[in-house]
Amino acid sequence: MSQTSERREKANAEAFKRLCESEPVLEDVRPGIEVLPGMTPEMILTSGPPLAFEEYVGGQRDAIIGGALFEGLAKDRDEAEAKLSSGAITVDGCHDHGAVGSLAGIYTASMPVFVVRNATYGNIGYCNFYEGTNPRRLNYGVYDEGVRERLLYVQDVVAPVVGNAVRHAGGIPLKPLMTRALHMGDELHSRNTAASLLFTREIVPHLLDLVETMRDGVKRTVEALTEDHYFFLRLSMAAGKAIADAAHGVEASSVVTAMGFSCKEFAIRVSGLGNEWFTGPHPEIHAKLFEGHTEDEITWMGGESPITETIGLGGFAQAAAFPLQKYQGGSAEAMVERNLGLYDITVGENTDFHIPYLGYRGTPTGIDIFRVIETGTRPAMDIGIAGRDGGQIGAGAVRASTPCFEKAAEAYKARYGGA
Amino acid sequence: MSQTSERREKANAEAFKRLCESEPVLEDVRPGIEVLPGMTPEMILTSGPPLAFEEYVGGQRDAIIGGALFEGLAKDRDEAEAKLSSGAITVDGCHDHGAVGSLAGIYTASMPVFVVRNATYGNIGYCNFYEGTNPRRLNYGVYDEGVRERLLYVQDVVAPVVGNAVRHAGGIPLKPLMTRALHMGDELHSRNTAASLLFTREIVPHLLDLVETMRDGVKRTVEALTEDHYFFLRLSMAAGKAIADAAHGVEASSVVTAMGFSCKEFAIRVSGLGNEWFTGPHPEIHAKLFEGHTEDEITWMGGESPITETIGLGGFAQAAAFPLQKYQGGSAEAMVERNLGLYDITVGENTDFHIPYLGYRGTPTGIDIFRVIETGTRPAMDIGIAGRDGGQIGAGAVRASTPCFEKAAEAYKARYGGA
Repeated sequence: MSQTSERREKANAEAFKRLCESEPVLEDVRPGIEVLPGMTPEMILTSGPPLAFEEYVGGQRDAIIGGALFEGLAKDRDEAEAKLSSGAITVDGCHDHGAVGSLAGIYTASMPVFVVRNATYGNIGYCNFYEGTNPRRLNYGVYDEGVRERLLYVQDVVAPVVGNAVRHAGGIPLKPLMTRALHMGDELHSRNTAASLLFTREIVPHLLDLVETMRDGVKRTVEALTEDHYFFLRLSMAAGKAIADAAHGVEASSVVTAMGFSCKEFAIRVSGLGNEWFTGPHPEIHAKLFEGHTEDEITWMGGESPITETIGLGGFAQAAAFPLQKYQGGSAEAMVERNLGLYDITVGENTDFHIPYLGYRGTPTGIDIFRVIETGTRPAMDIGIAGRDGGQIGAGAVRASTPCFEKAAEAYKARYGGA
Repeated sequence: MSQTSERREKANAEAFKRLCESEPVLEDVRPGIEVLPGMTPEMILTSGPPLAFEEYVGGQRDAIIGGALFEGLAKDRDEAEAKLSSGAITVDGCHDHGAVGSLAGIYTASMPVFVVRNATYGNIGYCNFYEGTNPRRLNYGVYDEGVRERLLYVQDVVAPVVGNAVRHAGGIPLKPLMTRALHMGDELHSRNTAASLLFTREIVPHLLDLVETMRDGVKRTVEALTEDHYFFLRLSMAAGKAIADAAHGVEASSVVTAMGFSCKEFAIRVSGLGNEWFTGPHPEIHAKLFEGHTEDEITWMGGESPITETIGLGGFAQAAAFPLQKYQGGSAEAMVERNLGLYDITVGENTDFHIPYLGYRGTPTGIDIFRVIETGTRPAMDIGIAGRDGGQIGAGAVRASTPCFEKAAEAYKARYGGA
């Protein structure tokens, strides 16, 4: 083995160790402005490598404008666009402020965020709240009176109750819930049914103590927590950010520490290559669409939820989540085959996340850009599908496109040497 | 097709239809004496075809005596044995009083029972409560101060809270919870993790309303409901009894409507053959034992929880519950193969209970005694394993033994004709 590849293997082993040994703990719920590093009152965060405002198109552009309106930074769409173009309202990438964005991933100053500390390594990851079951949501490029009401509902009802419960509990360790959820049909990206129930059960004793002062809110919060498959996703994502960031910055490691989309491109970050995004084209999509929708409606609005795949969940844990067939199509056989293939491109088997169907084998964890290139096996991701006219129209499994891995490999060789 | 077998098929289709269309609803929690048909203050119910007291040996005998002591029917073991022998305290089978017994299955007059009505057919099934995580339990043949305290805890704390919540809710339909739990790694016999959480989530809004009057009890009840894999089993069993009884008594049907054990034998009841039990030897056991226990300790103390297999759950839904490997051993491959084989001996595929791994195929439902004999495929059951010195020492998958099916087939032919 060459000195370079020996050094890389050692570095990747360290990154893998950090991915496995991280212990994400939900510590608080706070308005973004109070906790997100570098957040300002006039800033909107969105998914993917940051672009100039002019480059944001379609649903992602609408979502950014919607965020500005929701935050009261402009009185109408025209004013919002003018201020965003002039820089009076700034747009930046979620990842550069400790956060990860679901789909368009809009954060404004007042939005409540989960504060998840990596108890092992000390760093913090953030994510905002799921908007609810209505397919028309701000993070899917829609902003109207209904969306605004649901955002305020989350902000005024759900977040305060959850925040009080979490503080009352003195923090909620998330990994035990995630570990158990994988034994209950979740892969913690497109299916979080069990995790949402487990989280609810975890805070129930605290809700019982809060109920006298906020009775109605507590009941409505329990409803919001368990109404569908997605409440826990934002906790899975915040945990993912807290875990992946701990593995980032390992000198000479070729392990992927972030994957995400903007409306324009797919992109990855690599542990040993700083904060540069390596970009490439969007993947092709194999989706199951909600009734009444057709493939030509499919569009890209961004998305950083593949942080979950980065830490060994989602597409990397599909064989733990056969029920997902109903939601995103495919067959159990295909899920197993896809999952098994991902062991070829990862550093190791997760020590905490296990797949019962595979005899409790650890999930493939720590994507090595060189193995992706060598094997031609591309990372699988379970994602929500956005529609041209806004809103969620389905869900599907996609494979990352390879050019960004090739660009990253070039950058790696330039920096660390090697053939 | 002969006239006899045509008649039988038609009858079995009717029994199958009843198994599928039943809608079990938890209506109440009441002391056994108030609701169990034919229950008396001096009666102990136990699992399996009823035997003379002298025939009960080992843990099942100890459990019956423990029940008499718990109920205050005797001041010590000697007096209990004397009264049980003389008939001053009577022993009878759970099934003949609308109930099903878990392991030894001890019911006394004061014990709280779940009241589950079959909303489709009107009949009611009952089951008492899980005693808790301690492997030393009355239903595993142990009675001491600790067991007594836990029984009183269930009676005085858990049951009143659950009963109040259920009445406050106006009843809890169980099938939706069972259906969902099968998509979350449960098979609803030896694994009820998801169902217990789903049930808890279902009563949380009602618990929130009760918390002011019974704060401490509510919190402790939530703990009891979710502490391990077994709370919901008793609801699954009560639902199983309510469902199976609806399919019982279909003239000319050869579908099994109950399976169970006593310390002495394995036994089945058949829809078209009245209340007679057809008995045979205990099955051989393939078990995974808790640490510190050995195979020579394994003993039989009774058990009627295979009512769950009778309605298409448990061993008949193993491919929905791969996490069970950890608890009862085996492999995912073996679970799938075993599950698939059971389609050969059942009337049809359940219309509500589905297995995600098998592309949401309905569970094999409605065991036909003639198919068991013809194929040699014996019903699989997921059961808890009792130890010689009392207590649970493990769990395992077993296959029913065939002689009782042969005896039932003889009785069927004698009654209905046929080769």
